[in-house]
Amino acid sequence: MYVILVYDIGEKRVGKMLKLCRQYLNWIQNSVFEGEMTEVKLKELVAKAKKFMKQEEDSLIIFKSRDAKWLEKEIIGQEKNDLDTFL
Amino acid sequence: MYVILVYDIGEKRVGKMLKLCRQYLNWIQNSVFEGEMTEVKLKELVAKAKKFMKQEEDSLIIFKSRDAKWLEKEIIGQEKNDLDTFL
Repeated sequence: MYVILVYDIGEKRVGKMLKLCRQYLNWIQNSVFEGEMTEVKLKELVAKAKKFMKQEEDSLIIFKSRDAKWLEKEIIGQEKNDLDTFL
Repeated sequence: MYVILVYDIGEKRVGKMLKLCRQYLNWIQNSVFEGEMTEVKLKELVAKAKKFMKQEEDSLIIFKSRDAKWLEKEIIGQEKNDLDTFL
């Protein structure tokens, strides 16, 4: 399963979310991650995120596609990636 | 064609980008939009965005799927939408 994950989260919790998502997915932009993962691993990520998310303020949107081949990606401007960006 | 658009852009240009994207797509989170659009309309949006984007700072990522049915969406926490959020 191919996943695109985008979060919008209070500043105090950004570090935690970033660290969590990087354990499972590839960072492609500020608050955007993508990658191949199983439904089980995704549930694990979501369960961990819910522990520190503030339901009334934060949000996490996950797009799931059966296969990466159904998704075409276009990047305009700067491209971030895990190799050259360390926080 | 179904599109997910995510931008990461300098604060000074956020307003312009938000306004532009809302002309074409539905706002679902901070810097995330989605919706049905043609390839022609997408090219138009990208051309307009490039006029004010700073190539060395800003980025715009577009995921395209032939059909929304290939994408499943899950939202955890707050859900924004165009009906109750006006800037």
